[in-house]
Amino acid sequence: MNTGEFDLIAHIRARAGLRDDVILGIGDDAALLQPPPGRQLVVTADTLSAGVHFPESTAASDIGWKSLAVNLSDLAAMGAEPAWCTLSLSLPGSDPAWLDGFLDGFLALAQAHGIVLVGGDTTRGPLAIAVTAIGLVAPGRALRRDGARAGDDVWVSGTLGDAAAALHAWPAPPAALRARLDRPTPRVELGRRLAGIAHAALDVSDGLLADLGHLCRASSVGAEIELARLPVSDALAVHSLPARGAWQASGGDDYELCFTASPDHREALAMLAAELGVPLTRIGRIIDGDAVRALDETGRAWHPERAGYTHF
Amino acid sequence: MNTGEFDLIAHIRARAGLRDDVILGIGDDAALLQPPPGRQLVVTADTLSAGVHFPESTAASDIGWKSLAVNLSDLAAMGAEPAWCTLSLSLPGSDPAWLDGFLDGFLALAQAHGIVLVGGDTTRGPLAIAVTAIGLVAPGRALRRDGARAGDDVWVSGTLGDAAAALHAWPAPPAALRARLDRPTPRVELGRRLAGIAHAALDVSDGLLADLGHLCRASSVGAEIELARLPVSDALAVHSLPARGAWQASGGDDYELCFTASPDHREALAMLAAELGVPLTRIGRIIDGDAVRALDETGRAWHPERAGYTHF
Repeated sequence: MNTGEFDLIAHIRARAGLRDDVILGIGDDAALLQPPPGRQLVVTADTLSAGVHFPESTAASDIGWKSLAVNLSDLAAMGAEPAWCTLSLSLPGSDPAWLDGFLDGFLALAQAHGIVLVGGDTTRGPLAIAVTAIGLVAPGRALRRDGARAGDDVWVSGTLGDAAAALHAWPAPPAALRARLDRPTPRVELGRRLAGIAHAALDVSDGLLADLGHLCRASSVGAEIELARLPVSDALAVHSLPARGAWQASGGDDYELCFTASPDHREALAMLAAELGVPLTRIGRIIDGDAVRALDETGRAWHPERAGYTHF
Repeated sequence: MNTGEFDLIAHIRARAGLRDDVILGIGDDAALLQPPPGRQLVVTADTLSAGVHFPESTAASDIGWKSLAVNLSDLAAMGAEPAWCTLSLSLPGSDPAWLDGFLDGFLALAQAHGIVLVGGDTTRGPLAIAVTAIGLVAPGRALRRDGARAGDDVWVSGTLGDAAAALHAWPAPPAALRARLDRPTPRVELGRRLAGIAHAALDVSDGLLADLGHLCRASSVGAEIELARLPVSDALAVHSLPARGAWQASGGDDYELCFTASPDHREALAMLAAELGVPLTRIGRIIDGDAVRALDETGRAWHPERAGYTHF
């Protein structure tokens, strides 16, 4: 089998999918796209590197899924509708079976969200996947980090800490935890539905407290989080609070949405959670100040062992 | 000095530049952009890896320049106006001086073309730079690969073979050749002015014959190129034709535009070349068929030693 770069691109092109607004997809010098009138563009770029963002032994299809999921999560955090993406693949060598597995995961998630792969390139090097995703949003409807106000409730979707607990138990984590690490669920529909409700939002990728800190800095506010309120999965609930709390508060890789909203919206958010089948949990409040404090069950300040993941 | 990821991002953000249509740049989950009404988007993604796309000893500022230049060259080949880009940087470690040098080169070229860095990320790993560039074009004005017609002239901008000759003479190439390898000039203005003139176009990155082959396949035509007509720089002209011809015809890394146009446009193209100060050379013609043939000075078929660069 000839495994030259052009065959590889042709192989990817044949599986890339279709949208009516893609005038030219993979195969020219660049893609040509027709954005709908009156929409703004939302653009994000996130890279996954082997051994840094996923264990080396992760299945190809899970790597494909996750490399798109982390970008869709950023679009979700902006309230955007996914539209198009590019994929820059650095591969240590030619491995058609690996590539097919990778595309299985990547494209399954792409199709689920109507996002089409329109370009990219392949280079030889250590395994790394750089994705740029482009979404669409109506003017004034984007969810930003800088709109939180003192008195807002702080909410989070889904459950926290599962991915961190899976890494802790590596290489043999319980399947339910491992699924959260390998195949995070970007909260795309939730993000779009939060427009007009949330004052500020972001996705939880580096750990709740670290990410909420970014939101608070952007909004010039502080926050108080009640540790006992952090949503916990059945799989994680078997762990007791000291260890579990650190995974939930600062573990990272959750890809849930954290957002703030007026207490007036509590009922609307409960209805939205029920409609989407996505748990939404009120975990604290925005306050005047500039610090994010976590409170334990006695109301005392609680400090996690580490304050979020940084790559450097 | 604290060299955490967030400081690194803050450092890049402070230097990223401004455009009125960037509603939110670096710093939120994603950038928020306001495209002008009635335009199409042109999107391309190209990665540079150390040791593959540039010699390991290349200066940081030249790597920065080149990583954007190869993407701008793709926008140029579509006739697009550059607008926004993302940058995914894989760095082996923290090196603020290297990063500043990289940004010097990247942002100097960005500013020259009015393109603004709106997002991206940094990861730890072997040096690699993945850029996605987004441009704008009026409907129907994009230069594609699939419009060449039998009877068209084949043109190329600038000169060919300099970068390949520089690599051949590595690590001590003549400065003029090395400049072409390290700091290619994307032909952005030329590309935009070719709308309405060129029938088909692409940029020469993998070698003239290989790239022209892509254009011919997309257009279902063949081409004849006269080797003696390939434009040569003063620095390269000191080499005689057998070696020089291979660099010019199949060396790669030229980042010139190759395009086809009706013979009726010869005068208009001569005037455009003079106006832009960019040499445009007629190097052959499009013919019926499906092959790209290079002819030597006697009119005989000529075969380069290698038919273009592939990464796999």
